[in-house]
Amino acid sequence: MTVHAIDARIATPVAPSTGALRPLALTDVRIDGGFWGGMQELNARAIIDNCEAWMERVGWIGNFDAAVEGRLPADRTGREFADSDVYKLLEAMAWEIGRAGSENLDARFRAIVARIAPVQEADGYLNTHFGRPGQAPRYSDLEWGHELYCYGHLLQAAVARGRTRGDDEFVELARRAADHVCEVFGPEGILRVGGHPEIELGLVEFGRYTGQRRYIDQAALFVERRGHGTLADIEFGRSYFQDDVPVRDTTVFAGHAVRALYLAAGAVDVAVETGDTGLADAVEAAYARTVARRTYLTGGMGSHHEGESFGVDFELPSDRAYSETCAGIASVMLSHRLLLQTGDSRYGDLIERTLYNVVATSPAADGCSFYYTNTLHQRVPGTVPPNDTPSPRASSSLRAPWFEVSCCPTNVARTLASLGAYVATTSDDGVQLHQYVNGSLDAHIDAGTVRLRLDTDYPVHGSIRVEILESPDAEWALSLRVPAWAEGATLAVGADAATAVETGTVTVRRAFAAGDVVQLELPMAARWTEPDPRIDALRGQRAVERGPLVMCLESIDAPELDNVDEARVTGTLRDIEGAVSVGLRRLATRDGDWPYSTTAETRLGDEELVPLVPYNTWANRGPSTMRVWLPRAEPRD
Amino acid sequence: MTVHAIDARIATPVAPSTGALRPLALTDVRIDGGFWGGMQELNARAIIDNCEAWMERVGWIGNFDAAVEGRLPADRTGREFADSDVYKLLEAMAWEIGRAGSENLDARFRAIVARIAPVQEADGYLNTHFGRPGQAPRYSDLEWGHELYCYGHLLQAAVARGRTRGDDEFVELARRAADHVCEVFGPEGILRVGGHPEIELGLVEFGRYTGQRRYIDQAALFVERRGHGTLADIEFGRSYFQDDVPVRDTTVFAGHAVRALYLAAGAVDVAVETGDTGLADAVEAAYARTVARRTYLTGGMGSHHEGESFGVDFELPSDRAYSETCAGIASVMLSHRLLLQTGDSRYGDLIERTLYNVVATSPAADGCSFYYTNTLHQRVPGTVPPNDTPSPRASSSLRAPWFEVSCCPTNVARTLASLGAYVATTSDDGVQLHQYVNGSLDAHIDAGTVRLRLDTDYPVHGSIRVEILESPDAEWALSLRVPAWAEGATLAVGADAATAVETGTVTVRRAFAAGDVVQLELPMAARWTEPDPRIDALRGQRAVERGPLVMCLESIDAPELDNVDEARVTGTLRDIEGAVSVGLRRLATRDGDWPYSTTAETRLGDEELVPLVPYNTWANRGPSTMRVWLPRAEPRD
Repeated sequence: MTVHAIDARIATPVAPSTGALRPLALTDVRIDGGFWGGMQELNARAIIDNCEAWMERVGWIGNFDAAVEGRLPADRTGREFADSDVYKLLEAMAWEIGRAGSENLDARFRAIVARIAPVQEADGYLNTHFGRPGQAPRYSDLEWGHELYCYGHLLQAAVARGRTRGDDEFVELARRAADHVCEVFGPEGILRVGGHPEIELGLVEFGRYTGQRRYIDQAALFVERRGHGTLADIEFGRSYFQDDVPVRDTTVFAGHAVRALYLAAGAVDVAVETGDTGLADAVEAAYARTVARRTYLTGGMGSHHEGESFGVDFELPSDRAYSETCAGIASVMLSHRLLLQTGDSRYGDLIERTLYNVVATSPAADGCSFYYTNTLHQRVPGTVPPNDTPSPRASSSLRAPWFEVSCCPTNVARTLASLGAYVATTSDDGVQLHQYVNGSLDAHIDAGTVRLRLDTDYPVHGSIRVEILESPDAEWALSLRVPAWAEGATLAVGADAATAVETGTVTVRRAFAAGDVVQLELPMAARWTEPDPRIDALRGQRAVERGPLVMCLESIDAPELDNVDEARVTGTLRDIEGAVSVGLRRLATRDGDWPYSTTAETRLGDEELVPLVPYNTWANRGPSTMRVWLPRAEPRD
Repeated sequence: MTVHAIDARIATPVAPSTGALRPLALTDVRIDGGFWGGMQELNARAIIDNCEAWMERVGWIGNFDAAVEGRLPADRTGREFADSDVYKLLEAMAWEIGRAGSENLDARFRAIVARIAPVQEADGYLNTHFGRPGQAPRYSDLEWGHELYCYGHLLQAAVARGRTRGDDEFVELARRAADHVCEVFGPEGILRVGGHPEIELGLVEFGRYTGQRRYIDQAALFVERRGHGTLADIEFGRSYFQDDVPVRDTTVFAGHAVRALYLAAGAVDVAVETGDTGLADAVEAAYARTVARRTYLTGGMGSHHEGESFGVDFELPSDRAYSETCAGIASVMLSHRLLLQTGDSRYGDLIERTLYNVVATSPAADGCSFYYTNTLHQRVPGTVPPNDTPSPRASSSLRAPWFEVSCCPTNVARTLASLGAYVATTSDDGVQLHQYVNGSLDAHIDAGTVRLRLDTDYPVHGSIRVEILESPDAEWALSLRVPAWAEGATLAVGADAATAVETGTVTVRRAFAAGDVVQLELPMAARWTEPDPRIDALRGQRAVERGPLVMCLESIDAPELDNVDEARVTGTLRDIEGAVSVGLRRLATRDGDWPYSTTAETRLGDEELVPLVPYNTWANRGPSTMRVWLPRAEPRD
């Protein structure tokens, strides 16, 4: 592991003081057009605005006004954690201001902060749900109260603000809140944790940003206190709160998926800053087992609606996938931290998979509605959610404009605004490309400044052209991630013939000159994917992937089918310039009075070709039934 | 449908005034030995005592003392519906007193009633959770308060008492409560329903017992009010409360399974007494679709832990089967009502299946612990529940002595005590045998008295010998249910050679004489069972049944397997005098870092024979992993 000097005020969500790779500022990575450029535009144009409008409409921002005006608790709206979504909106705005520089957005950011600031109490406490006459006392409900969780998001938002616009009133407000937390939950204070991890992430990053060790030490205390049963036992078990097993004794993630992943990400942050390799190794091993045994093809995590939790190993039902959007984002956060630490391309693979197939799936094409859960199998067409009231969160049939628990839309917004931070990294002597976007980047390595132009319409096609716009004279190394699925990839450097490259990471080390071109070709033809035989829910089924995209069959594309569940796929798979189709035979169903019998009779229709679409676009055309995993026409064909 | 005069005070839980078949008094059916005789003995010896001891220990009976002594709400224990379990215990005791005549048990029954009686208020209201200073007002929380649910169980207990020992203080107490409900929720009263159906069943049966029409009319009002959204919407949706769709518009059961089934049973009762064939037909059709598409092989119902609810059609995951014991019992209750109405042997089949594979599965062999949920697939060995504190209800890995929500043990107790009521029925000119027990019965038909002796060790063997002990001189009809699985069954009458009989119902109509013997032979050899191809969770798997018993593979019987999930079954199936075994090949697993790949490689070990055990005995030998549905070694072998 390399100890490297890093500007703690670099415009990126995570700036560890050591690690194999250094993050780039998202202001040094410009994404223009293409898949992710389009998503960032959607975020700027619609998603952030929608989140703000909805939180005005449902009164969650208004809760701060109500606090100032003495109208609490009577006029408070939303759940106990409503403040946190306002902070996540502020984080999204802050990154977006840093990325695109909109002064209009900056004015809106400052206007919201001006409504929040007067609510902070003299000792730094800030929450609209506790502590006033008629409200429960501060910290009287650590299991469900979410006060520390709200601070965590406040701190992440303040880091985003500080790293894009410098210290201001909001950063100072956050500093007072962080100091308050250290006072109240320090070694002499309340020796417990909050029910929902998040404060750990916020404190470490705020400590990195400010250079103040006490915040990191406090985060370390929170990480160490977990798993010792300081929170109540509940019907879901203490694993719901991540309070059943100490983090360093965890062998696989269990319980509430978002909580597990936020905690793990915070634990990596703590481990990095405290040099606690035992803690870092434990998280890495637990995550590896979780990825190998408890993760959906989409990268989604969480197999149970009950408790929003991981299942046990290989328990991955498509139809009951919870796969919360926030769990996907939390997984990206954890993978990004481990990528920075280890440089292992598998983390880049998983980030790519999860960004394309969970994060990008959540928002509708117009950015006005979102998936909270991300099922891999829709058995009955969904009903259109109301446009004027929030929907229940687990209503996964169609995207909804807003949810009673609406953590996901603001999480999508902050992730898309900061997406540049995931594209590339540097080391002392090189630049590493992890995610393929159309755009350009500037990087500073020991030898000097590197400027690159990236041209691609990935993932439509697999050509990624990297042009050196500026290079130091000395030799340096350009590394490119070759996804694990990209068997047969080739790399061409300058005028040299393309040569085959292994999956993992390919590195070109040389003295580059401006105008040099490195071209990576990833084989994009659609491919069949088979599940581990221990995944009961997928037995006898196969899926199609194309590049990083998981494909799916929507009933709207197979009008001759009554229901997509009657589809049985043959071995036929076509990919004509990205238009993917599979051979399909329709199951003739026979209704009896009991669904079990002594004979297994399956009658199938003739083969026909039906199109598949990327999973992240499903249900954009209205209610439909949908499958990612497709039953085989013949058990082995 | 036959209108028949019936003694409304006959010792049986359900005494409809019309229907195809008439119930027998459980006092006229004596079960001695055999499977169900053993279960009734276990109930008498252990289960009822355990329920009583636990409810003293956790204070649920003591809540009534606390009410008398003015110690409520401070000293109240248990959930809002704790009173109902005391009433279910009383119902179990009442039937058991009727069945076996224990005066000791009668004294205990009266002692509990003596503690309850003083709690009833002057206007008939009775509940330990509402209405006192410091408690919420009466009927202020119809969604969750369970006051009407508690009355429903009180009325069923009173019916059991009245029909076995005649009117007494407890029946009078129940009458005052029923009158109170009619006052408060009548046409001029609160025009809403309770969150958990059950009052409907209680009111109709109490109406039948007392001959008072007003109770039946009130039940009809409750049934008609459902589905009109008089209860709040919640995250699970109003289907949780069965308040989303009017009963007569229901096409399939959805939402909370126990609530759906109790309501349907109550609706049938109402329909029968009011001649509302539209309502009866709607329930029958909805139930038929539910049985055909939303029912586990065991007869269990409820596919989601979240909301304890039915899934959609063909969504029947083994590993997440909720299949609550109470839902199985409620299904038996509904099937029994429809059997009495229609005479259709399929209801007898389903009662048998559910009794053997859900109800009998719940209690441990010693009667001291119970399953609340009944999974069909245990992926990791369970942990032994505490002996000294109640367990969470959804902890399905091992049976627990008591639960925080402990509706199931008392439900098992009352069902086993009244089991005689399910064995046989009469019509004007015949006797129908539905469940095969070892024992004897007396029946009264138009021609006179019939007395029968039943000898069998079913389901170990398939011979059921029926000897006529007493018969009227005139011709009458003896009918026997031939289960749908019993292809190849034969019947021998007297000295005649056995002849093949169709599945369904076989009827022998003749002038019988004492000493005549009718012998039914059911083919019991273990058989493979295949799932409907639309059940995703069972693709590529098969199960073994033997007679009415669902079999399962427990890891304890396959010590060479690391985990039962690594078992792949061949086509080999042996049944040597009931000792069932299957051919099994072990899956060689290969751990990677990602559970999806381009190749589906399955390596299997050599075939070996492993024993299966009846599902209802699983986990009686300690923690194990278990599967009912076994993946095939070859997709089609």
